Amino acid sequence: MKDKKRITLGEIAKRIGGELSGEYGDMEISNVAGLKDAVSGDISFLAHRRNLKDLQNTSASAVVLPKDVTFDRLPVIKVENPYYAFSQLLHIFYDKPYISKGVNPTVVMGSDVHVGNDVSIYPFVYLGDCVTIGDNVIIYPGTFIGDGSLIGNDSVIYPNVTIRENVTVGQGVIIHSGAVIGSDGFGYVFHNGTHHKIPQVGGVIIEDGVEIGANTTIDRGTLGNTIIKRGTKIDNLVQVAHNVTVGEDCVFAAQAGIAGSATIGNRVTLAGQAGVTGHVHVGDNVTVAGKGGVTKDIKDGQTVSGMPAIPHRDWLRTMAVFDGLPEMRHKLSSLENKVKELEKIIENKK
Amino acid sequence: MKDKKRITLGEIAKRIGGELSGEYGDMEISNVAGLKDAVSGDISFLAHRRNLKDLQNTSASAVVLPKDVTFDRLPVIKVENPYYAFSQLLHIFYDKPYISKGVNPTVVMGSDVHVGNDVSIYPFVYLGDCVTIGDNVIIYPGTFIGDGSLIGNDSVIYPNVTIRENVTVGQGVIIHSGAVIGSDGFGYVFHNGTHHKIPQVGGVIIEDGVEIGANTTIDRGTLGNTIIKRGTKIDNLVQVAHNVTVGEDCVFAAQAGIAGSATIGNRVTLAGQAGVTGHVHVGDNVTVAGKGGVTKDIKDGQTVSGMPAIPHRDWLRTMAVFDGLPEMRHKLSSLENKVKELEKIIENKK
Amino acid sequence: MKDKKRITLGEIAKRIGGELSGEYGDMEISNVAGLKDAVSGDISFLAHRRNLKDLQNTSASAVVLPKDVTFDRLPVIKVENPYYAFSQLLHIFYDKPYISKGVNPTVVMGSDVHVGNDVSIYPFVYLGDCVTIGDNVIIYPGTFIGDGSLIGNDSVIYPNVTIRENVTVGQGVIIHSGAVIGSDGFGYVFHNGTHHKIPQVGGVIIEDGVEIGANTTIDRGTLGNTIIKRGTKIDNLVQVAHNVTVGEDCVFAAQAGIAGSATIGNRVTLAGQAGVTGHVHVGDNVTVAGKGGVTKDIKDGQTVSGMPAIPHRDWLRTMAVFDGLPEMRHKLSSLENKVKELEKIIENKK
Repeated sequence: MKDKKRITLGEIAKRIGGELSGEYGDMEISNVAGLKDAVSGDISFLAHRRNLKDLQNTSASAVVLPKDVTFDRLPVIKVENPYYAFSQLLHIFYDKPYISKGVNPTVVMGSDVHVGNDVSIYPFVYLGDCVTIGDNVIIYPGTFIGDGSLIGNDSVIYPNVTIRENVTVGQGVIIHSGAVIGSDGFGYVFHNGTHHKIPQVGGVIIEDGVEIGANTTIDRGTLGNTIIKRGTKIDNLVQVAHNVTVGEDCVFAAQAGIAGSATIGNRVTLAGQAGVTGHVHVGDNVTVAGKGGVTKDIKDGQTVSGMPAIPHRDWLRTMAVFDGLPEMRHKLSSLENKVKELEKIIENKK
Repeated sequence: MKDKKRITLGEIAKRIGGELSGEYGDMEISNVAGLKDAVSGDISFLAHRRNLKDLQNTSASAVVLPKDVTFDRLPVIKVENPYYAFSQLLHIFYDKPYISKGVNPTVVMGSDVHVGNDVSIYPFVYLGDCVTIGDNVIIYPGTFIGDGSLIGNDSVIYPNVTIRENVTVGQGVIIHSGAVIGSDGFGYVFHNGTHHKIPQVGGVIIEDGVEIGANTTIDRGTLGNTIIKRGTKIDNLVQVAHNVTVGEDCVFAAQAGIAGSATIGNRVTLAGQAGVTGHVHVGDNVTVAGKGGVTKDIKDGQTVSGMPAIPHRDWLRTMAVFDGLPEMRHKLSSLENKVKELEKIIENKK
Repeated sequence: MKDKKRITLGEIAKRIGGELSGEYGDMEISNVAGLKDAVSGDISFLAHRRNLKDLQNTSASAVVLPKDVTFDRLPVIKVENPYYAFSQLLHIFYDKPYISKGVNPTVVMGSDVHVGNDVSIYPFVYLGDCVTIGDNVIIYPGTFIGDGSLIGNDSVIYPNVTIRENVTVGQGVIIHSGAVIGSDGFGYVFHNGTHHKIPQVGGVIIEDGVEIGANTTIDRGTLGNTIIKRGTKIDNLVQVAHNVTVGEDCVFAAQAGIAGSATIGNRVTLAGQAGVTGHVHVGDNVTVAGKGGVTKDIKDGQTVSGMPAIPHRDWLRTMAVFDGLPEMRHKLSSLENKVKELEKIIENKK
């Protein structure tokens, strides 16, 4: 899958903004790999101090290191954040020039559709009435975009995505296969013995730089919008219910779920299979651990765990006791017996 | 997205079956909104007593209230259930007349397909052999309907849905994007060291008025049918396994799951991320709290929580102690020491 | 849905490798059913000893029994594993001869696509550049297969599946509707205040005989591959993250999830809604109970439960105490009071 590129260490150092040791500027590098997997010709990187041993043993031809690590055996490029450099190296070695494929003749469009420049709209895509597609947008096969929806410049929509009507997708957004944006919120009113559907007439706003995982679902608002703010990244199979507002630069791992009208601050992390109940507020910089269940408001900066979620430290302390519960019960019983005996002895002495 | 309708309060009162105060029958209303969001020209409603303060401050031009609330500042329509009136108001202001789009020429059909009157079948839909589509059915792009399946009158199938062979969908059913109905049940027999697939030759029956959320999966029976009864509402990313029977008017929130051959009564609520193990029976009017895990039969009318799920009251009492476990252990230790001391003292006195 | 086949007991015994009692070789059988559902003309089977009573009462015309069960009322075929025989009987009565449908004219293919013999590629399928499709492969409508991907012989891909670029699917693999194979792994590096995407340039390898459930997602590796080994069966709505390796003959129930770079041994069972955190190793023959959360390495052969997951026996012992926590706290308090009193008495006696 990789183009056979060969790039000099000097060029690499320049492009990742690093400082190259020694006289290795002309050495050619052909790939990037982890310290253990790297072979001759590869450049590698030290992401965590715990991998220092792997650095000693790597077969890479050059390495990217943090500024304060000393290492002489190989050519070194020093940077502030080697893991960020890794992402840059992947771009350098794997990015291919984008060539617009235009609009495939099988694409079906409604009326008043506006399509920007240099798009690639693949077969079997359906664009409803009044849809707007920005410049350089890629829409893969089988994707549906409903009436009045908008896709911003430079966004990529993978195959078999459904974007319902009245959804606004910002610039540089990535939506993975099978995601559904703008499905009806789950709202009913129980009346005369059955559930009556509450029409869901709001929309969804996905801001710039958001990424949405495969088969994730984001419901439209009942009235008003469900909102995912700039830079937030959402993994696969996540549920975001109607009228939720998610802040900027959040990270939601797979199978997390957020119930209706909850508001999530900025830079919030939901680990895998975490859940947030409806109508609560999760503050900025909060982390909810895996399988954690948020049932009430969480203040800024907290890390919480468990169901119901409590501060992570308390949860750790409690779980440390939890496994010893059978022993605790046993001790309690034997203590009860001892106290009874003492009581008897004292009673007899009276 | 809203048509610019203007409707008199008199007409609104008539259509929602309410009683209009004062001489406001000719006042024109153009939209419905929540108490906080409403602006001049809107009608709003009081859904919960806890919002009485919002009622005082609303900028709406008229309000729908329960019969026993007194309020003079604005024109009032009194009804039994204002939240139900809200759903009616959304229909009044947002419903558009349905215009059949017919069958798009890109649709591919097998043999012996019967299509009812006034349908809208969008591009890239595939209908297998012997499929029956009722009147007024809407099938959005990219949906697949397998051999011998049936879609009842007035049902709506959103984009990219898969309905496999031998599935019966009732009348007035809504199936959201990406849902899969009739995928193979997960059945294997371990024999001679590997898992052998058990052919899943049953079907699925979805009764009238059911709603199925985006990317939800409902497996076909091994033999016989998986059944979802009348009026049940299922949210996104829910799993219903093979040979499950779900009763009437149930409500399953997102990411809930039901394992094979479980039977679920009528009016059962599964909150988000709840689970029901296989082959158990959940009685009528049961509620399983968020993340609750049902591992055995649950009697009618119970509310259960936790994993394994226990009566909610017991769970609340237990969780109240749970956080105090480290303190309990500490107390137990110090008590053990005290009792040891007492024993010594008494021993010495002998 | 069933073809009206009539097959003699003699033929059935031969095909399932069993021993037929008495002189019933010419008796004709027309269907297979469970002991309770069977009617005259059906053959049934005893899968578990707990169903011996159903055997007594069955209306079936013949039964398949384990070798050590004696039963005279009906014709009997004795086999080693009657449940395996059941799966064979389903094949016998329900399998239809495969007739290749060829490549539908609406299918869109890129360049250098190789399609094997006797395939069935349905409408609205998209095959990218350099795709290879083996013999007898069935690809249902709306499926996408990306550049350079390969589908092995005898595999079945159900409707609306997305298989991204650089994915290798083995022979005899079944992928259910809505599944997404090869979506980008969820990898970012936080740098200068925002999350930067780490390009996900690896692939996915699905080995022979694997089955993947509806709307399940399997991410591509960052570098290198995500791997699902031979014979593993994965249910619906399961998440397998980037660079995970799953061993042979595993069984993952619905809504289970595995985080990035975890390695799963052979014959591992994940029950419904179980989770495995990133970078851990789960040994061979491990079972994780429903909703269990694996947070560290698990040794071969263990059964674990709870969050965090602990050995199942310990979890059972602990949960047995858990419900009694309020009572324990009460006992502890009253014991504290008693000890205080004893202390006073002894103090006074000094």
